[in-house]
Amino acid sequence: MADPRFFAYAGPLSLGRLAESATLDLAPGVNPHRLMNGVATLADAGPEDVTFLDNRRYLGDLRVTRAGACILHPSVMDRAPPGIDLLLSPEPYRAFARVAALFHPEPAALGTVDARATIAPGARLGAGVEVGPGAVIGANAAIGDGTSIGANSVVGPGVEIGRLCRVGPNVTISHALIGDGVRILPGVRIGQDGFGYAMGPAGHLKVPQLGRVRIGDGVEIGANTTIDRGTLGDTIIGPGCVIDNLVQIAHNVRLGRGCVIVGQAGISGSTHLGDFVVVAGQAGLAGHLRIGSGAQVAAKSGVHRNIPAGESVGGFPAVPIREFRRMAGTLRRLARSSSGAADEERE
Amino acid sequence: MADPRFFAYAGPLSLGRLAESATLDLAPGVNPHRLMNGVATLADAGPEDVTFLDNRRYLGDLRVTRAGACILHPSVMDRAPPGIDLLLSPEPYRAFARVAALFHPEPAALGTVDARATIAPGARLGAGVEVGPGAVIGANAAIGDGTSIGANSVVGPGVEIGRLCRVGPNVTISHALIGDGVRILPGVRIGQDGFGYAMGPAGHLKVPQLGRVRIGDGVEIGANTTIDRGTLGDTIIGPGCVIDNLVQIAHNVRLGRGCVIVGQAGISGSTHLGDFVVVAGQAGLAGHLRIGSGAQVAAKSGVHRNIPAGESVGGFPAVPIREFRRMAGTLRRLARSSSGAADEERE
Amino acid sequence: MADPRFFAYAGPLSLGRLAESATLDLAPGVNPHRLMNGVATLADAGPEDVTFLDNRRYLGDLRVTRAGACILHPSVMDRAPPGIDLLLSPEPYRAFARVAALFHPEPAALGTVDARATIAPGARLGAGVEVGPGAVIGANAAIGDGTSIGANSVVGPGVEIGRLCRVGPNVTISHALIGDGVRILPGVRIGQDGFGYAMGPAGHLKVPQLGRVRIGDGVEIGANTTIDRGTLGDTIIGPGCVIDNLVQIAHNVRLGRGCVIVGQAGISGSTHLGDFVVVAGQAGLAGHLRIGSGAQVAAKSGVHRNIPAGESVGGFPAVPIREFRRMAGTLRRLARSSSGAADEERE
Repeated sequence: MADPRFFAYAGPLSLGRLAESATLDLAPGVNPHRLMNGVATLADAGPEDVTFLDNRRYLGDLRVTRAGACILHPSVMDRAPPGIDLLLSPEPYRAFARVAALFHPEPAALGTVDARATIAPGARLGAGVEVGPGAVIGANAAIGDGTSIGANSVVGPGVEIGRLCRVGPNVTISHALIGDGVRILPGVRIGQDGFGYAMGPAGHLKVPQLGRVRIGDGVEIGANTTIDRGTLGDTIIGPGCVIDNLVQIAHNVRLGRGCVIVGQAGISGSTHLGDFVVVAGQAGLAGHLRIGSGAQVAAKSGVHRNIPAGESVGGFPAVPIREFRRMAGTLRRLARSSSGAADEERE
Repeated sequence: MADPRFFAYAGPLSLGRLAESATLDLAPGVNPHRLMNGVATLADAGPEDVTFLDNRRYLGDLRVTRAGACILHPSVMDRAPPGIDLLLSPEPYRAFARVAALFHPEPAALGTVDARATIAPGARLGAGVEVGPGAVIGANAAIGDGTSIGANSVVGPGVEIGRLCRVGPNVTISHALIGDGVRILPGVRIGQDGFGYAMGPAGHLKVPQLGRVRIGDGVEIGANTTIDRGTLGDTIIGPGCVIDNLVQIAHNVRLGRGCVIVGQAGISGSTHLGDFVVVAGQAGLAGHLRIGSGAQVAAKSGVHRNIPAGESVGGFPAVPIREFRRMAGTLRRLARSSSGAADEERE
Repeated sequence: MADPRFFAYAGPLSLGRLAESATLDLAPGVNPHRLMNGVATLADAGPEDVTFLDNRRYLGDLRVTRAGACILHPSVMDRAPPGIDLLLSPEPYRAFARVAALFHPEPAALGTVDARATIAPGARLGAGVEVGPGAVIGANAAIGDGTSIGANSVVGPGVEIGRLCRVGPNVTISHALIGDGVRILPGVRIGQDGFGYAMGPAGHLKVPQLGRVRIGDGVEIGANTTIDRGTLGDTIIGPGCVIDNLVQIAHNVRLGRGCVIVGQAGISGSTHLGDFVVVAGQAGLAGHLRIGSGAQVAAKSGVHRNIPAGESVGGFPAVPIREFRRMAGTLRRLARSSSGAADEERE
């Protein structure tokens, strides 16, 4: 059960209510009036908890779970132990996410502006906007209805933020236009100057960065991630993208819809990604590339070439993922068959 | 044209004024009184915009640009379409940077201290200093003329910051001496304890970090980058260095003049770089190394050995860049010629 | 000598006092009443400084040091030059750390709450707690005796922080329970949502993150590091762990006691480390792994498999470190013996 010091709680909830609100089917014989207290993993759940099975790898845990109810795919309902109430979904993990949010709804924005916030002249705050202590809203910035701005965050002049956004504490946003339902976690930096210089032995001359950052609806941006504004055009994050912590997104980068950028990955200037591209953790993309929709970049890869839509790559320099694996295998075999200690590099 | 909500605008400007202020030569026949509205890329510029060509790769774009004027090298003037006014420079990108700054000058510091800032006793603020809401200037700190300190930034006791610096919002600076004209982007951390412990199975004993950070004139430091203070001496960033976002610079590191450190690179403790060294994105340097002036470290490389001046290295462990490329090619060839699927490693 | 603008100074101190407080033995003939002024490296120390030798690699520096006193292992006392007072310890670096802290003690928390801090209703502050300007302590949070919370840091509702902790400026902490003597450097983000989505072509549905972060006693966390809270359980950092700057620790990760995580390393979700594991700089660990106690992961490695206790691994994908070195050596040899330029990959 989620710690009540940290999470709102809207339970107990009946199985019928969960089925209705989270688009689940009750298995035959399940009592829709049975009340459940919360959510938990297969291993930790007790008789008043709802759990889920999304991966057949955990069928063993299912067999011994003490959970009172379990969300799972109809194809595995016969693998559940007797006595557990089954909630059926073709997408059990999505259904579980909805159920968890029913038990522990995210609080709405408070609708109050703290007396210690600074609201510059000309800033427009929508209905129900919350602004935390120490936050600064710049001149002529606009904050949409129901959005919250965390304590000590700084929203620069002219910035537009849509409706129902959540901006965490200690965030900095400038030169940006942000859509609805965007979640920005603590310490994120959006809209600062990109890394642009006319370089040379006489010194590196700063190139004015005159573009913006545009962020689509429903985007989530992880803690301490940085997104630079464009040089002459915009840096663009498409709707529905999810970006993890400590990611670097350079000037003029464009992400399509639904891209997934995992922690500590970096995308260099002017590289464009299509829709639903996945860039795994600590991967890096060079600048001015075109990455097709649905492409996948494995963790720690370094990409120096364009990637066609749908292709998976890995390694450094990145190659198609099958080839990367074959290369790794070949090298291991060669090293093992060579004369051993004599070949060892002593660092 | 840069969004007027976000950028100051000093136009329109005549071609003659641009030529004079940005050290350009007007091609024969250009009317110096013609007024231009702003700057744009070759692809986006219209008849009232100034654009530039710096890379022959974009000669195709030059041929079809609608720009009213173009900055380019005299050697390619004959490649421009008729009707476009040519502005000649041996360094077109540097000239363009100067022109862009003429149209969109960076605002000077406001010269006001916000009533919500905290200025500790003994702190000295120069003429025209701006301190944003929520910023904290520690006891006996000194801020030079014309410098701005962003909202909610924290400057520790005794810190010295020179003239005409720009410190963004949500920055932390302690134990540091900073030169003139330094730009520090949002979320930068300067001067905190380095990662120094006397390690052992009985626990890791913290080693007091008793040095400082010294930053030369004209340095630029990217968002959320971290620079730790020295252990017994100083961490030193030489004048004119440019450092991108999310870079880690450990205690006792020294950078010479004009080094370029690209996003997410890391430099371990006590490693010294000469002048104009380039460390590309996500590269890592081990500790206690000596990297000669003009050396270049390719993206994602891992450097464990000293690098002579002027040498380029790549890979992990890093080797001379030609050797790295040959190794990658050799491995691809070997993997292709091996028996295929049988060698594949299944992860 | 440490810059008095930045560091407290409790000297001069006698050699006898140092020996007693830092568990050192004075070599025969050393005058315990001799006063020393401070600490310095072998190369920089003068006649009134205490220095140390911990690594035989610096025996050359020892021979020519001008230091008045030197901490070293008894086995090398005969290598010291005449006239220098020797302080003997089986662990010279640990002893030096203690001596440095005697000369330059860390100031205690001020014991005052700044008038510009925000303390929410129900928050409990222990005796001697310091809260800096602009800091925010959420409802029902609890801060232990002698702890300091830096300027503009934000501690969320219900968070518990133990005694004698140091939380730097611009830190964000939510959904967390933190032990005693924990040091949290500037810009750290603790307790925000992990990167959890039910992904799919219809969009990525956020999975509520309902766990916490629990941090043991004596942990140190470097600048701008991020630690996400658990999904249904907790993210756990064991006592005595030291974590460097810009590290990413994902949801549900568990670290045992005394782990060392170096700068820019990343640990993916649900991976568990034993005790005293070392993860070197820029290394990455995939999710759901088990890393045994005492295992070591070399810098820049990418780990995709479990690691047995005590094993050292390197490379990407990571293999036992001896094998990694052999592979690198084999590949260099093969590339050199191949036909050279013809094999070179031109990027």
